[in-house]
Amino acid sequence: MNDKVNLAEKLALLGGWYEPGIVGRINDYKLQVVKVKGPFVWHKHDETDDFFLCVKGRLTIHLRDRDVVLEPGELFVVAAGVEHCPEADEETHVLLIEPDGTPNTGDAGGAMTATPREL
Amino acid sequence: MNDKVNLAEKLALLGGWYEPGIVGRINDYKLQVVKVKGPFVWHKHDETDDFFLCVKGRLTIHLRDRDVVLEPGELFVVAAGVEHCPEADEETHVLLIEPDGTPNTGDAGGAMTATPREL
Repeated sequence: MNDKVNLAEKLALLGGWYEPGIVGRINDYKLQVVKVKGPFVWHKHDETDDFFLCVKGRLTIHLRDRDVVLEPGELFVVAAGVEHCPEADEETHVLLIEPDGTPNTGDAGGAMTATPREL
Repeated sequence: MNDKVNLAEKLALLGGWYEPGIVGRINDYKLQVVKVKGPFVWHKHDETDDFFLCVKGRLTIHLRDRDVVLEPGELFVVAAGVEHCPEADEETHVLLIEPDGTPNTGDAGGAMTATPREL
């Protein structure tokens, strides 16, 4: 990555909800932006923690025992192995960080599995 | 990390400039907030890339061949081995991500080397 990344500009390049785009890397971790609306799928990543930073809107991360609600400037790390389901009532913009190759749907697979494109 | 992190609230807990605080972790990476003003020191990290996200203010990352200027919502990753010197004219707030144990001054050491505290 030779240039800075303006998150809003990169988010504007995205298509639909839950279709992430890679904006850079730190070592072997991918930096992804994603627009979300509606519920995602329950899943977990047994091998890695999962970083969420809310950039715009309001992201609810459902956990089995509680909800974590993120507003802009708030972040949360879902620990490895913990089931979670992101959801947003209105379109919400998120920065995600996780190791390269981590599938967005974790162990769940299914129709919402998306290969991120390089932005 | 069991709770969400509000970056502004964590930044308000910091003391002086260039004294980072750890707000969470993703795997073996530390998530740090730092308030900066004035010039830091030229340094590099031979073993790791270095992630900067501007949260508030305006951060200039001097590289040997150019400057990268970050405003809120903009990020930059300094590649491993690349000399850089952060600087801010006015107080600026930054989210940093790098492997646990990475010293803030990299190979340079000196008076600005700071052990981050857990916030």
